[in-house]
This record gives sequence, C-alpha cells and structure tokens, in this order.
Amino acid sequence: MKEQIISMAEKARQAARGMLAMTTASKNNVLLNMAHALEKQKDFICRENEKDLAAGREKGLSGAMLDRLTLSDKVMNSMMNGLREVAALPDPVGEITEMVKRPSGIAVGRMRIPLGVIGMIYESRPNVTVDAAALCLKAGNAILLRGGSEAINSNLALAKVLQEALAAENIDPAAIQVIPITDRKAINVMLGLEEDIDLIIPRGGEGLIRFVAENSRIPVLKHYKGVCHAFVDDSADLEMATKIVMNGKTQRPGVCNALETLLVHEAVAEKFLPAVGQELLKAGVEIRGCPKTRAILPQCLAAADDDWGREFLELILAVKVVKDMDAAIDHIFKFCSQHTETIVTENYSNAQRFLREIDSSTVMVNASTRFSDGGEFGLGAEIGISTTKLHAYGPMGLKELTTRKFIVYGEGQIRA
Amino acid sequence: MKEQIISMAEKARQAARGMLAMTTASKNNVLLNMAHALEKQKDFICRENEKDLAAGREKGLSGAMLDRLTLSDKVMNSMMNGLREVAALPDPVGEITEMVKRPSGIAVGRMRIPLGVIGMIYESRPNVTVDAAALCLKAGNAILLRGGSEAINSNLALAKVLQEALAAENIDPAAIQVIPITDRKAINVMLGLEEDIDLIIPRGGEGLIRFVAENSRIPVLKHYKGVCHAFVDDSADLEMATKIVMNGKTQRPGVCNALETLLVHEAVAEKFLPAVGQELLKAGVEIRGCPKTRAILPQCLAAADDDWGREFLELILAVKVVKDMDAAIDHIFKFCSQHTETIVTENYSNAQRFLREIDSSTVMVNASTRFSDGGEFGLGAEIGISTTKLHAYGPMGLKELTTRKFIVYGEGQIRA
Repeated sequence: MKEQIISMAEKARQAARGMLAMTTASKNNVLLNMAHALEKQKDFICRENEKDLAAGREKGLSGAMLDRLTLSDKVMNSMMNGLREVAALPDPVGEITEMVKRPSGIAVGRMRIPLGVIGMIYESRPNVTVDAAALCLKAGNAILLRGGSEAINSNLALAKVLQEALAAENIDPAAIQVIPITDRKAINVMLGLEEDIDLIIPRGGEGLIRFVAENSRIPVLKHYKGVCHAFVDDSADLEMATKIVMNGKTQRPGVCNALETLLVHEAVAEKFLPAVGQELLKAGVEIRGCPKTRAILPQCLAAADDDWGREFLELILAVKVVKDMDAAIDHIFKFCSQHTETIVTENYSNAQRFLREIDSSTVMVNASTRFSDGGEFGLGAEIGISTTKLHAYGPMGLKELTTRKFIVYGEGQIRA
Repeated sequence: MKEQIISMAEKARQAARGMLAMTTASKNNVLLNMAHALEKQKDFICRENEKDLAAGREKGLSGAMLDRLTLSDKVMNSMMNGLREVAALPDPVGEITEMVKRPSGIAVGRMRIPLGVIGMIYESRPNVTVDAAALCLKAGNAILLRGGSEAINSNLALAKVLQEALAAENIDPAAIQVIPITDRKAINVMLGLEEDIDLIIPRGGEGLIRFVAENSRIPVLKHYKGVCHAFVDDSADLEMATKIVMNGKTQRPGVCNALETLLVHEAVAEKFLPAVGQELLKAGVEIRGCPKTRAILPQCLAAADDDWGREFLELILAVKVVKDMDAAIDHIFKFCSQHTETIVTENYSNAQRFLREIDSSTVMVNASTRFSDGGEFGLGAEIGISTTKLHAYGPMGLKELTTRKFIVYGEGQIRA
C-alpha cells in the first residue's frame, strides 16, 4: 500500500513539472472538455455512484449521509457549471508584479507560479473531487485526492473521466489522481510525503482536520470551526443591528459563517435586547444568555460556561452584555475561532479600532457574517477557508493555490 | 522547564495582542532607543559576552566558532546600524489593498497584519538576537528566541537591554524574550506550542534545520542549503558568461547564493570551457567535470555522482556539458535546492522559458546568483530565505513576517 501511494505522489510531482509549461488556453480547454465528459459519461458515473449508495444503505448510513453521497442531476449539473466557471476565471499563473530596477542595474520582480502538488483529504461528498481538481488544475497544480471510503466508487469514476479529458489534451493524467485505498493508514502515508506534496487541504469534520494537522509533515491549510461574533456597540443603529443578527443566525444556521455569539454594549442592552430577542424567539432561536441578558430577557436560558466559543450550527445563540468595547474585544480574543467577527456601530473610531485590533481572518463593520465566503468576496471560487495565518488567511481562491518566486532580468551584472 | 517555556510563550501571545494597537511612531522610537541602549550598555554586554568566550575557549571551540561568538566593536556597530535601518523602513502593517465594491454593496479588501508570535531558533551568532528582534518588532510581532548554548550569556544580556527599551516606551517587554534554557529539549517544547507560536524560523546548519522541520507542529520557514546552478546557453555572450560564473563561484564562496554547478550547452562547450576554465584555475577553483568536460579540459578532476547537487561552499565547481536546454532543465530539476538558478543567453525565447519553467525561489537571466539576497532585491533587510513554497518563497523581508486578513465595510447589508 505504502509503495502505491508513494508512486502516485511521485507521478503527481512529475505531472506538476510538466504543468509549469501549460498555457492558459490549454487549461481552459481541459476544463471545458471535463464538463463535456461528465455529461457524456453520466450513466457510467451514476452506476458507480449507485454502488456506493447501495453499500451505504447496507451499512445503515443516515439519510443525510446518503444525501451527501448522491450524485443527483442537480449535483452533476453543479459540477459541470463549476468547471465552466473555473475555465472563465482569470489565470493567476504568470502574473508579474513589483518589478523594480535596483541600484545594481538588475530588474527584480515576482512571478506567480503554481504550488506544485496539492493533497486533498475529504469526507463523503464526491463532488469535491471535481470541484477541487478544477481549481488546482487552473492554478497549475497536480492534485492527489483521498476521499472517504463511502464514496470510493464515485470518486474513482469521476477521476477516470477527468483523466481521459486530460489525456485528450496531452496533459499527464497523473495531474489528477484519486488514491484507491480507503484505509486510514493511507492518510498517514500521504502526510509523510513532504518531498512530493507541497500542501495538504483537509475538508470535513473537526476530527478529521485535527487528525491531519497533528500527523502531517506537510504544511496544512485548515479551519476547525467558525465561531462568529457580532458586537453591537452603544452607537449602533439598532434596527440595522437586528437585521444583521437575524441574518447571521437564521439565514443558514448550519454553516461556518453563521453567527454564534452576540455581544451587546450595556448602554444599549435594555433597548436592544427586547427588540432583537422578540425577533429571535419568533424565528425559533434558543437564546442562551449571561445573567444581565436574562435580567432583561427573562424568557431566555442561562448560558453555560462552554456556550461561549461554541459552534452551535443550529438555531441557538449565546448572548452576553459587555461593559464596553474593551470587554467585547477581550471576549472575542478569548473565544473566537479566527473566522469572522463583525461590529455594528455608527462610531468612526470604534469601527477603525475593531478593524485594526481584531485579528480574525475576516473582520467586518455593519455587515452580516454570512458574507464571509470566497464567492461573496469576489475570489471566483473557494477551495476552503484558512483560519491560521501562514500563507493564506480567510477564504482561499485560485491565488491561494499559487506562490510567487523572484525573477531577475540582468544584462551581465555581477556583484561587487 | 516545560512550564517555564509554556509560560514564556503565553506571555509572548499576550504581548503580541497588545502590539496590534501599536503605532508606527512608537515602533520606530523603540528601535532607535534600542540602538541607543546598546551603545550605553556596551560594557555590560561585552562582559557577558566575555563569559561565553571564556567558556568557549575552555570547551576548545574552534577559532571560527569563537569569532562568530564575539561581539566585537564591528558587530556591535552593525547591530546598532541594523536597528536604525529597520526604523527607517516603511511599516508593512495596516496596508490595505484590493479594496473592491461587491454586487451585494459591501466593500471588501485585505489589510496587512502581524503574524503574531515568531519563534526563532538559531546557533552561535548573538547578533541574530538583535537583528531578528528588530525585524519582528517592526512587523508587529512578538518574538521568542532560542539561541545556542555557547552564546547564552550574550543573548540574555542583549535581551535584557532590548526589554528595557520596550518598557521605556510602555510596550510589554514579553515582546522580546530569550529562552534561558539551553537543553535541546527546550526546542522540542517550543515546537509543540502551536497555540501560542505562529511561525518558527530556524537559522543554522542543515542538522539543526532538519531537526526543527521534523519535530515541529508549527509552520516552519526554512532553507537547508543553496545549490545554485548557472546554465550557459548556446546563444550566450561568452564573455558575460565567464564574468557571471567567476563572480558566482569566487566572490564569496562560503555563502548559500554562491554558484555550485555550471551547465554548458554542448554547442559552445569547446569554445567556452577553455576560456572559463583558465580563469577558474587561475583563481584557485577546483573543477570537477563530467567526461565531456574533461575531454575539453583535461586538467580538471572527474566529478563523482554526489558532486551533482552538492553545496561545496568553497572553491570547487561541478561542471557538466549538456545536450540542450531540455537537458539543462532536467538536471536542475533533479539536483537544485530551490534557491537560485541563472541562465546566460541572448535568445529571447530561451530566457522566457527558463524564467517560466524553473520553479526555484529565484530565477535569473544574465545575472550572477550572488544577487539573490533580500538587501540586493530591495526588501530592506532579510530575516532569512525560504526554499519551500508556502507563505514565502525566496528572500524574506518585513512583509513576509506579516499576513493579510479580509476587511469588510458594510452599511447594514445582509445576505439574501
């Protein structure tokens, strides 16, 4: 098993080298051909997907799990559209910036280049195979995919179709490979191949991500969870604050940019909490409040210690009244997950201070945390979100799948 | 011991948080005060340095080692000048770029922020304590330094002086700390503190760097060695090529951007090798050549297999005649260290192809590899060189000690 994975990684490295010379036109052709091939080979893909679904039903997977596993027409179409959208995005590779002439006479600048080989480790959704492969290809990288055991037939079928499209454009099919071994030990082998894999991106539950982070010798871009905070300042437009809190908590509570904790300046708590509380309760949100919150909103539950910094992912909101902005910032530093925090304020200095002093990957003024997303931010497509500060921080698009090298144009200069 | 290091790292994290609100003026004041304090406390520092030197002589350290350990007047002045130069550099923190208005009405951009806490692990040169602390401070980071046991008294003395300068400006002295424990286990403890240290930068021999890379749970920016290549194309200006080869090999052979391997297109080998060979031999360079090289230059030694990709760091050069540019690129991919490679050519397409297809951190046309340096590239000062592609690639200056977060200016927008 080990040898097989090592050999796949070596082939990926070799493919990545070839991809350094690939033109934008060629990459876009492949992406469009891939979309076409998915359409044409739909029956084959669905037959393989049906094998996974049958095995899943046998194993007693939940309805939600089976749902995630299903390559429905809707999911198939979304993969094809995704490929076409990625083809339409600008190519990040080759961009040259910061070119300057130095006193020595050499011209120095930076050229954007692919990272090389990306290792993707994910769970049950087979569409990740196509979505991730498309982004990596457009950024000029080879990708080694290791999906969940429940989706193995689907993943292998998708990879086969994508590889045929690569070969048709004379690109090394090893640029997109699905590891056929579903044993967890395969992940350990992958995480040790620092010579042939440049970056690991895990997608899935916190357990998988922690396992990857703790066992990898390769850099990992990850986020564990999204515990987003909103702070309603004493100068806030309270109607705006209500809209932002309601949208953050109720528009789609199961995702990482949903709101989990509301902090309210004590000077406006008596006015704001009854108003927002009524809306929240009407929408079916369970409020878990600090003692001061409960004194104003007696219908709410008492927050437990571990409700602060907790990712509920459902219609539950922790609410705390704070003395001032310092206390709000302290609370956020202690409990946030470096994902997204927002302040609602009409005070210029407080807005600037919040933007400067909160070091989460996204910091907002007067906007819903639900905007924290690669698509909404204009990155075109999102390969994931990073909540650690190295390399990329926040939503990651194509550029985050590249790096920059220095280039020098000389005319025979030597160093004195 | 473990508790002490953990407690230092927690204090560094706390200090880093305070530094998010620090003004540029305050950072520059501290840097200038530090230079002043080094001058004033020179006697104290030299007394402590003398303790290290005495212990070193006792232990039988080599003259070169003792030399590196010595805080001579020249080294002291260079540290003070370094502090003043860093004060004069532009502050990277707070820069806002790529601000765009999105269809939803929110304005999204990126703000440059400090990384947080940097862990620096280095060997015997005590001046690294001051040089690294200055750059980290200017980029708004706290730094935890772990130097070699031979320099411990010097490092602690320098840290004491720097901390007094921080305190005088009301900055938490925990922003610059030297770990007083010289046991190697202290490094292991440090490398496990991923909650409180954001980045590890090792500086020293390959052994130390490998140890750090293999044991760290924190991202590491490192380079093992510099095996720089020059390829002399068949269209090269051969006089220029000779100058570039001579400069790369002989101007300062003991450093990582010195030239280690010369590749020569076979079409010009018979003309070029005798010319450059004569100059090299005159300069005392030992040439280790491939069979074709030896056929042209019989005075040179035969290259052993492990001379390809070897970092000689002295007046030895490996020389190979290659069939064409493809063969040169193949050789570089197989043996380079991702540091710096240069092509000497008058052919436009070959120059562009070399720049595009070689993915080393610095790629040059018609210039000496010796230019590969933060100072020469205009970064102002260099904290190190990275030869892995994540986060930073190539010489690292102040910007590479920062990251970028997303900021959003809204006017009450919610997601539909």
